[in-house]
Amino acid sequence: MDLDGAIAELRTRGCKTVGLQYPDGMRLQAIDLAEEIERRAGITAMVSAEPTFGACDVPRMPVDLIIQIGHAPMPYLNLRDVLFLEAPMALPSLDFLEDTLPLLEGPVGLLTTVQHISWLDDLQEYLIARGLEVIVGEPDGRIAYAGQLLGCDVHTARCVEQDVNSFLYVGTGDFHPLGVALSTDKRVIAADPFTGEVRDLANLKDTVLRQRFAAITAASDARRFGIIVSRKLGQYRMGLALEVKRLLESEGRKGYLLLMDFVGPEFLRGYRVDAFVNTACPRIAIDDSAQYDKPMLTPKELEIALERKEWGRYELDEITSSHAPPASRA
Amino acid sequence: MDLDGAIAELRTRGCKTVGLQYPDGMRLQAIDLAEEIERRAGITAMVSAEPTFGACDVPRMPVDLIIQIGHAPMPYLNLRDVLFLEAPMALPSLDFLEDTLPLLEGPVGLLTTVQHISWLDDLQEYLIARGLEVIVGEPDGRIAYAGQLLGCDVHTARCVEQDVNSFLYVGTGDFHPLGVALSTDKRVIAADPFTGEVRDLANLKDTVLRQRFAAITAASDARRFGIIVSRKLGQYRMGLALEVKRLLESEGRKGYLLLMDFVGPEFLRGYRVDAFVNTACPRIAIDDSAQYDKPMLTPKELEIALERKEWGRYELDEITSSHAPPASRA
Repeated sequence: MDLDGAIAELRTRGCKTVGLQYPDGMRLQAIDLAEEIERRAGITAMVSAEPTFGACDVPRMPVDLIIQIGHAPMPYLNLRDVLFLEAPMALPSLDFLEDTLPLLEGPVGLLTTVQHISWLDDLQEYLIARGLEVIVGEPDGRIAYAGQLLGCDVHTARCVEQDVNSFLYVGTGDFHPLGVALSTDKRVIAADPFTGEVRDLANLKDTVLRQRFAAITAASDARRFGIIVSRKLGQYRMGLALEVKRLLESEGRKGYLLLMDFVGPEFLRGYRVDAFVNTACPRIAIDDSAQYDKPMLTPKELEIALERKEWGRYELDEITSSHAPPASRA
Repeated sequence: MDLDGAIAELRTRGCKTVGLQYPDGMRLQAIDLAEEIERRAGITAMVSAEPTFGACDVPRMPVDLIIQIGHAPMPYLNLRDVLFLEAPMALPSLDFLEDTLPLLEGPVGLLTTVQHISWLDDLQEYLIARGLEVIVGEPDGRIAYAGQLLGCDVHTARCVEQDVNSFLYVGTGDFHPLGVALSTDKRVIAADPFTGEVRDLANLKDTVLRQRFAAITAASDARRFGIIVSRKLGQYRMGLALEVKRLLESEGRKGYLLLMDFVGPEFLRGYRVDAFVNTACPRIAIDDSAQYDKPMLTPKELEIALERKEWGRYELDEITSSHAPPASRA
């Protein structure tokens, strides 16, 4: 983490106050880091104590500059009062990639997340040296780096889908590669650099598609929908929400806008609707569905539930840079 | 509820969009009400799906007018884009007051909450007819009505404390009368108009004071404090938070500002501090302390923990109209 660079920036800008935002996984270090910044920069720091899920999610803070740690910026949001301080991880041995080789068919689309984006050249070199052609997809305006995945934007995979025979995701967890598996027809292999585990996303894709089909079926009879809209700067899709409302009304159903910042089951329990449509973070419906007591669909899934579209190849709801952010914060 | 009046106001103002805010207890009716307003006013409604605890807590919404239901306004906030739609309850039989009579010593300070404020004249009449002198305390600028209590502001009790021998609170729950019991030395009797239960707050006061003493003692050795600041318009006390930070530093401790909208234990777990000082809603430390894994103090309690003040008569942390709200939303 380039903390020196961040502190220099605070001095250059003459900041008296700084806001600090951390991903949940860094909560334990938050106060130590605030203490260090206060001491070294001689200013007052303020920790944002609300969960942050990405660069889509920068709150207002009454400070001269906000530093968001652990994420890359979304370039198209062009936030002048926010500094993104990435927290890259040191490159381990690449031996963990060996078990991927029998599963990959070149050309291979190489993908990762911001934590490991600095490894890309080394990863590519390793695969090329072993006879695989590697393609790294260019980002759209929402993504900072070639080959970088977001939960809500898999452009770096989609844009090279026709050119590759398989994808290799290097990183932890299923969240990011699942987005790729859902929105492309190519094999997706995930390799965890810390556990060495290598897996094919095919089974998980199948499971999730069944869950989505069940949710769509359950919602197909729903009369009243709660249409979730988040005010978070990179998740605010009010235009889409109003289109969803009109679509529902044209189909003889009803939709009611539910405006919130943080989307969570405790905040939605009790509303007398039959189902939800989520225009905020596109992954909540897919990854958190079990937490909600009513079916939750993405807007694209709603079109299937209303029989405006066929259940064909699955279309992941994404927020890409073709979605223009609001001119000012909601 | 004067829904006709609200709809007329929407027409008068030429609103195309309205935001609706409900207290948690009204979640079940929220969508039905949104539906009725949309239909009758011919506009688009948006429900705020974040918990609302009072008129201190009106979020930004991208609408022409916000209607907050169930609370009275805080007059000194002077919110031109918010309409407060009170939800008064029908006056039941006043027989439930009979059991209070042996416990009351006149003059009696009469207190209630906004849900029952329309009963005040009838309540007063009942007591006077039975030989008790009744005093109804005037509000400060944060409170809409004489005799009205807020969790964070018990001015209508404090300002008449010297003139009464006991207080009578008419309403449900302990939350409101507890504030009175903690901040005055007079007997506080609570009468529930729906269950008929009559109780003296003395035992609860004693229990809570013991809990506060324990929290203060636990925090007295704390080196690092998290200083909670909420951005909610009527709870934002950044000036106080910075004073707390300076106070801690002058005592050789450290305080780190934690900025959040909604204060909840899940958002604070994991921060490496020994205790919290809460400058947001003053009742969280008192009523929700069991939910937090570290001691949480009010700013006044912190002064005792740091031995800047003696543990004498308990001073309830309040937000009154002497606390100037921010010029604009944080």
